[in-house]
Amino acid sequence: MELLEERIRRDGVVKPGNVLKVDSFLNHQMDVDLFNEMGKEFKRRFAGCPINKILTIEASGIGIACIVAQHFHVPVVFAKKAKSINLDGEMYCTKIQSFTHKKIYDVIVAKKFLSPEDHILIIDDFLANGCAVDGLIDLIRSAGAVIEGVGIAVEKGFQRGGDIIRNKGIRLESLAIIESMDDQTGEIVFRS
Amino acid sequence: MELLEERIRRDGVVKPGNVLKVDSFLNHQMDVDLFNEMGKEFKRRFAGCPINKILTIEASGIGIACIVAQHFHVPVVFAKKAKSINLDGEMYCTKIQSFTHKKIYDVIVAKKFLSPEDHILIIDDFLANGCAVDGLIDLIRSAGAVIEGVGIAVEKGFQRGGDIIRNKGIRLESLAIIESMDDQTGEIVFRS
Repeated sequence: MELLEERIRRDGVVKPGNVLKVDSFLNHQMDVDLFNEMGKEFKRRFAGCPINKILTIEASGIGIACIVAQHFHVPVVFAKKAKSINLDGEMYCTKIQSFTHKKIYDVIVAKKFLSPEDHILIIDDFLANGCAVDGLIDLIRSAGAVIEGVGIAVEKGFQRGGDIIRNKGIRLESLAIIESMDDQTGEIVFRS
Repeated sequence: MELLEERIRRDGVVKPGNVLKVDSFLNHQMDVDLFNEMGKEFKRRFAGCPINKILTIEASGIGIACIVAQHFHVPVVFAKKAKSINLDGEMYCTKIQSFTHKKIYDVIVAKKFLSPEDHILIIDDFLANGCAVDGLIDLIRSAGAVIEGVGIAVEKGFQRGGDIIRNKGIRLESLAIIESMDDQTGEIVFRS
């Protein structure tokens, strides 16, 4: 998506260790007009899919997911990083490893919000090693719901997340895929 | 706001200990059409205020804030619950007590996203004891920015948060204010 790539080139900052900071428009300060253009593009790419719900994970996926949901006219459910695991059987639960924070989270969704009748689009801001999306896929499968696809704003194409999801036979649409970055020059190369 | 009160009456669940569960439309599953009506109402109430940015806090405030922001044509910044405190001076930092999770969080906003030129509307889903909003006010004041007001979806009128904010001379607009709840009968009384 040209508009997003331009914005990443303009406002993204490449840091050592293959870190891309996009906190001025994507995941700390959020440009809702840009999110709306992303919503239109996801709607175009997933046109005809019987999506009735969007699933994301707290925190930075929520804003994009809500704006995108307007284009599909469906509700959003966000998976929560659990403070304490509820063992009363009312939650689907999985574990997600965060490389950024070097810990493993228990992540939950209330069972009443995922059912075998649901056709789910997963939305998230970033895809790198794929752990978060993999956890959401696990939650959806626990519920017996259908995964219509995964929509990502920025995919780090040089990490394994994209391949993991595509190898499961799940449709993945990333609006910008970064092929390589150089923290010395600031250059960012996108997959065409 | 009649539409929100009706929805709380229909789908809210009163639990012992003055707990109101609105997770089917507000803070776990999210009804973005309802959020849009809330956005229109906040825009009506804060019409004429020179708001140029919306500030909220992760996680459940983010969805509402993003949808509301579309009606003001401004970006959203969300304060983050810090995993580790960054002491490099690039963050405004405050502490927020969570009664729900019985802990104190360090909460941060990057300094580059709050400045003395900013006129901020705070948006959050719930107001009870006021700790979260009070922390956001503290962050805004650290930056020397102007607080135009606070917009809340559901205020528990019988807890002290509303008074704390109003007593600071800050304009508070809550779309539904609960005067009392009864977990035996399920009855919810709204402030008129």
